[in-house]
Amino acid sequence: MKTKREETIAAIATPLGEGALAIVRVSGPAAIDIADAVFRGAGKLNSAAGFTIHHGYLVGKAGERVDEVLASVFRGPHSYTGEDVVEFSCHGGVFVTHSVLSTLLDAGARQAEPGEFTKRAFLNRRLDLSQAEAVADLIASRSRRAREASLAQLEGKLGARVGEIRQTLLDLCSMLEIDLDFSEEGIEIVTSEEVHRRLRSARGMLDELAGSYERGRVLREGLSVAIVGKPNVGKSSLFNALLEEGRAIVTHVPGTTRDFLEENLILGGVLVRVTDTAGLRASADPVENEGVKRTRSIIRRSDLLLVVVDLASGEEPRDVLSEISDEYHAQRVILVLNKIDLLPLRDWSVKPFSDGRFSGLEIGISATSGYGIAELRKEIGSLSTAGSGGEDISMFVTNRRHWEGLKKASASIGSAIEASEMGNTNEFVAFDLREATESLAEITGEITSEELLNHIFARFCIGK
Amino acid sequence: MKTKREETIAAIATPLGEGALAIVRVSGPAAIDIADAVFRGAGKLNSAAGFTIHHGYLVGKAGERVDEVLASVFRGPHSYTGEDVVEFSCHGGVFVTHSVLSTLLDAGARQAEPGEFTKRAFLNRRLDLSQAEAVADLIASRSRRAREASLAQLEGKLGARVGEIRQTLLDLCSMLEIDLDFSEEGIEIVTSEEVHRRLRSARGMLDELAGSYERGRVLREGLSVAIVGKPNVGKSSLFNALLEEGRAIVTHVPGTTRDFLEENLILGGVLVRVTDTAGLRASADPVENEGVKRTRSIIRRSDLLLVVVDLASGEEPRDVLSEISDEYHAQRVILVLNKIDLLPLRDWSVKPFSDGRFSGLEIGISATSGYGIAELRKEIGSLSTAGSGGEDISMFVTNRRHWEGLKKASASIGSAIEASEMGNTNEFVAFDLREATESLAEITGEITSEELLNHIFARFCIGK
Repeated sequence: MKTKREETIAAIATPLGEGALAIVRVSGPAAIDIADAVFRGAGKLNSAAGFTIHHGYLVGKAGERVDEVLASVFRGPHSYTGEDVVEFSCHGGVFVTHSVLSTLLDAGARQAEPGEFTKRAFLNRRLDLSQAEAVADLIASRSRRAREASLAQLEGKLGARVGEIRQTLLDLCSMLEIDLDFSEEGIEIVTSEEVHRRLRSARGMLDELAGSYERGRVLREGLSVAIVGKPNVGKSSLFNALLEEGRAIVTHVPGTTRDFLEENLILGGVLVRVTDTAGLRASADPVENEGVKRTRSIIRRSDLLLVVVDLASGEEPRDVLSEISDEYHAQRVILVLNKIDLLPLRDWSVKPFSDGRFSGLEIGISATSGYGIAELRKEIGSLSTAGSGGEDISMFVTNRRHWEGLKKASASIGSAIEASEMGNTNEFVAFDLREATESLAEITGEITSEELLNHIFARFCIGK
Repeated sequence: MKTKREETIAAIATPLGEGALAIVRVSGPAAIDIADAVFRGAGKLNSAAGFTIHHGYLVGKAGERVDEVLASVFRGPHSYTGEDVVEFSCHGGVFVTHSVLSTLLDAGARQAEPGEFTKRAFLNRRLDLSQAEAVADLIASRSRRAREASLAQLEGKLGARVGEIRQTLLDLCSMLEIDLDFSEEGIEIVTSEEVHRRLRSARGMLDELAGSYERGRVLREGLSVAIVGKPNVGKSSLFNALLEEGRAIVTHVPGTTRDFLEENLILGGVLVRVTDTAGLRASADPVENEGVKRTRSIIRRSDLLLVVVDLASGEEPRDVLSEISDEYHAQRVILVLNKIDLLPLRDWSVKPFSDGRFSGLEIGISATSGYGIAELRKEIGSLSTAGSGGEDISMFVTNRRHWEGLKKASASIGSAIEASEMGNTNEFVAFDLREATESLAEITGEITSEELLNHIFARFCIGK
């Protein structure tokens, strides 16, 4: 009876749909033998070197041709999974691709579970766990900076940093344990001041990493921007102007409701979700009131408010701002003074404003003529990268599990500091430290459980 | 200024969506140079042999890493297009894949048009036109036999057969032309009987090929089966029983209406579209009447009717058949005698029936218990392959353009035969024959126009 890991697995690795090409991937001890059983080319794949490509046909049980394919051969450990791997590049139709997979399953491969290729790569030490998780994040990434953060993590930078911190904790742990041995003889190996210093330094490093997760939320989820203001001040025109100027609209969000339009665009390499809201003021019309209620909830959830004011109609910015003050929870605000083409010329460029309750930026624009839109976009873009701009994105924690591990380790070190300050023996301090190192080891997967692995890899797509 | 064909093209070759892998493909004179400009691996791709794979990173203009990739190198003419080709296997997310493509476009490649890779393969004589068209058919195929027919065509069997017939016509043409030269001297090179014989033989071969298109419609479009009968005779139970037994449901047709359920299943390697219809009889209820109208239109469009009769309720098959007789247009009929579990035991297996107007098969089943369903499925399966069963599927014409070319050639030969029989000089006969050979040359693309090529390749997907 083979263990699960000794089985050879196969799956379609490309998205399903009609395309020019599709890849069906086989990995495991029997990958090349199974491939050879159904592949007819100039020679046997068994005698092929790794990193070579071979033209031929895949044939079914009755010898009938299933598809014309290219077979790429990889020999373990020099492959994605670390095992022998054959990738068949076949014609990209849904039916053809399934036929190729079926042929391989008939020849003895087992359908791979989601993430099973990457899980094997982890088990064969081709990737640490944080790298494996970066693979899934990279595939799901929707903006340049999110892609860059995942790619840096895939290169192992986060894992290496966590490993470094863990090593300093392990060193300190050893030191404390030696100190314990010698303490009975009244010899002090390390002063308690030195222990405190090292603990605080380690906690500082962990907190910095953990903090990048909080600051990096925009990287993961995008910046949510709400356009608010009274009716007829030009909210929809601004919405359209922002979209038109937006270089890349990534996806169309289907949740367009009667009251709200939401679109994704990329500004400064970051995903920005712009929502056009209904009016702000309560009304006698129940439908409209429902819209006002939703507007308020959108304001609360947004990272940035674009408060649109029609100066030409004599509207006062402070009146509009006072209407949203109840919903305001420290979001950033840009006061957008619209319809300036109807007003006397003055300097409408971006400047700071403050009215006591709010402070932010103000800018004059004309949504219909496009005046000022580029400048506004630039401001939104720089807000969306603020907190990450200038920082080394390769050290950004983007995964909640990693963040939790860092927080747990930091809390354990906190206990260690407390124990040490309360004059507890180093035994107690070392116990807390060991807990911290275990939390860190879980991030990179040096310590792990089958349950955790299953949980992590279940969120992968099939074929990865 | 480069001609379009001298440009290097790039496109995403896999379906869009989240997947483990995606392929971005570059082809053209500068393919390897462009790839080298953005690829960082152990060595330059320029010095790599064809059919080899290289690990590395794709980098953007500022030197930033865009993705970790595998680069497969193919050197013309030994590639799909016949040109130098590099295929990048990258992480399969939508954003990542687009980033990889953008990087290549920034480096000097041009976004490929739909089918442009295959068009180049044709222009570089890697494929004849009928093979190139088979690529698109293969990708779109939805059943085993459709896939087999396209694959055989991709292997060039149809092209070769058309080429053979064309050659015999060209030979005959030469003979007639030589005969013309000598006729003034009273020497007959070829008898008019011999000319007739050869013309008829050629036309027979063309008509046989063209006929396979008509017989092969089921291969292309699937067999449409309608389940009809009075209310409560078990139509829906039969529908569900057929689906449950169906080994592979290929796609779910979203056009499910209040009145009709349609599902695709595979029987005998052929796509079968089964529609469950509403009642047959006019009613006072306008909604129901609309259903009856649609039922009649479905009957007219179907290849096979499953007429369900509830014998247990005393229904008479001839009464039901008479109700559909108006709509009947030579479809095949299987009379399905349902609820036989409520009737005395007798031989319910498949047998022929005829009631004067209709003739077909009848079978007794019990849709709820599943009795007889396997036998019914077998009958539907053999009907769906009838006309192709036993025939050499590799000689099936599945493309309308090819069929039209064959019909035109056949008509030209018809004119030639007529001209010859009317005693016209061989000059007229040869003229018709040349027309026939040109129609055939258009099938394989030996004679072609830019307009025709654009038309053909426009139906391809991007990246093929």
